[in-house]
Amino acid sequence: MLEDFDGFIFDLDGTVFLSNELLPGAADVIEELRSREKRIVFLSNKALQRRNAYAEKLSRLGIPVDEGQIVNSSLVTARFLANNEPEASAYVVGEQPLIEELESHGVRISSDPAEINYVVASFDRDFHYDKLKIAYEAIKNGARFIATNSDRTCPVKGGELPDAAGMIGAIEGVTGKDVEMVAGKPSNYMLQSALEILGVGKERCLLVGDRLETDIKMALENGITAALVLTGVTSEDVVENSEINPDFVLDDIGKLKSLLGFKA
Amino acid sequence: MLEDFDGFIFDLDGTVFLSNELLPGAADVIEELRSREKRIVFLSNKALQRRNAYAEKLSRLGIPVDEGQIVNSSLVTARFLANNEPEASAYVVGEQPLIEELESHGVRISSDPAEINYVVASFDRDFHYDKLKIAYEAIKNGARFIATNSDRTCPVKGGELPDAAGMIGAIEGVTGKDVEMVAGKPSNYMLQSALEILGVGKERCLLVGDRLETDIKMALENGITAALVLTGVTSEDVVENSEINPDFVLDDIGKLKSLLGFKA
Repeated sequence: MLEDFDGFIFDLDGTVFLSNELLPGAADVIEELRSREKRIVFLSNKALQRRNAYAEKLSRLGIPVDEGQIVNSSLVTARFLANNEPEASAYVVGEQPLIEELESHGVRISSDPAEINYVVASFDRDFHYDKLKIAYEAIKNGARFIATNSDRTCPVKGGELPDAAGMIGAIEGVTGKDVEMVAGKPSNYMLQSALEILGVGKERCLLVGDRLETDIKMALENGITAALVLTGVTSEDVVENSEINPDFVLDDIGKLKSLLGFKA
Repeated sequence: MLEDFDGFIFDLDGTVFLSNELLPGAADVIEELRSREKRIVFLSNKALQRRNAYAEKLSRLGIPVDEGQIVNSSLVTARFLANNEPEASAYVVGEQPLIEELESHGVRISSDPAEINYVVASFDRDFHYDKLKIAYEAIKNGARFIATNSDRTCPVKGGELPDAAGMIGAIEGVTGKDVEMVAGKPSNYMLQSALEILGVGKERCLLVGDRLETDIKMALENGITAALVLTGVTSEDVVENSEINPDFVLDDIGKLKSLLGFKA
C-alpha cells in the first residue's frame, strides 16, 4: 500500500488531535511518512485561527510543521478572492484571523454597502444584527455572497458552538439568496488548494478524516482514496448506515501504520 | 356587494396607512362600514409593537380603534402558546413588546436552555451570537422552534430592514431543523385569530391587503374573498404576472366604497 501513495491529506480536529492532545499514533505515523519523503498537508474548515497558529500547535504537540503545510478555510477563501477578483472589497462576517488572512492576500476590507463586492460569512462569535444589516444592504446592491465553511456547529470541550451555518442562514434568510461559494470541505476549492500544495496527482493521494459528509465525501467525489478514523465525530454504527462509503475505516490515525504496511 | 359581507379584515402597513399617514379614503371607508355595523379587524405581521400601540396610532391618525380589534403576530404567538402549552417556558429571540405580550398570556420567559420548551424567533434588532447559542442549546435539548412571522425584510422609511427571516435562518442553519410553526401571515393561525375576533364565517368575510404572497394567499387558500390594494409593496405588473389572483384589485382602500356600492 505504501508505494501506492505519494501525498497524504490529513484532517486535523478529530483526526490528528482532539482539543489539546494528539490522537494515538499521530506523531509516529507522520514521522514515518516523512522519513519516506511522502508529501503531507493538513486541512481544517475553521477560520478562527491563522495557519501559523495551527503550525505552532502541531509543533508544540510533537509534530513539527510549518504553516505552508496547513490549508484552512480562510486561506482557501483568500486565494479564491485573490485569484478571481484581486481588486475586490470584502465585508467579513467573521473574526479577526480571517480578516488578516484576506488582507494578507491583498483583499480590501470594507463595511460600506455601496462598495462591498463580496460578503464573506464565517464563524463569528461577535455576530449581531448590525452586521446582518450591512450584509443585506451589500447583497441587495449586487455584492456576491460566499462563505469560508458551512459547518452547523464547531465541537468544543463540553459541547458544540454555533458555526458558520448560522451566519449563512441569517443572510440567506433576509436576502432570499443562497450562498454562492463555500471554501471549506466538502467543496472542491479546499481540495484544489491542498492538491496544489502537495504537487501530487489525485490518484496518488490518500485522505484521512473523521467526517463522512465533509472529509470522506470530498475525497470520494474527486476520486481520492479515503480513510475514515473513528476518533472524531463518527462512530462505527453511523458508518454502517451511511451512503458515504470510505475505502478504509480505522480506529485511529495510528492504524495507518499497519494499513500502509510499515514495519513494526 | 355590501350585503355579501359581514366581516372585514384589513392589513395595516401599505393598506390602511403607510408610515405615519393614512392611505386615501381609509378613514371614510372604515367609518362607512361601521355605520352599517360591519365587523372589522386589523392585521399586522409585526411583533415590534404591542396591540395598544397600533390602536393608538390608528386613533391618532383618525380611525378610532381599540386594541381588541388588532391582531398582530405576537398576539397570535402568545395565544398559540397559551392554548397549547400554558405551562411552557419560552426563550424569545425578539424585542420587548413580544416578551410582554407572551407574559401577559401567562407564558414564562427563560434563557436557561435546560428549561426552555419553546424558542420563539422574531424581528430582533438586538440579535447576536449569544442568543443564537441559547436557541441552539435549547433546541438541541428538545425545545420546539416557532416564529412570530417569516418576513424577509420590514419596509421602513428609505429602505428595508432585515426581519425575522434572518433570525429564523440563523437558528435553522445551526440546528438543521426547520421552524415548526409561524404565527403571522400567510399562516392559518393568524387568520383563525382574526375570524374568532370577528365572529363571522369565512364566506361572509372580505380581506383587503397589499401583499400577494401573504395577505392574498392566506385569504384565497381559506376561501375568503380577497382584494389587493396597490398602495403597498405590489404594483400592477406584478399582479398580472403572479399565480396568486385576488378577486379584486383596487388602486387604494378608498376604492372599496364604489366596489361595495356605497352611495356617494
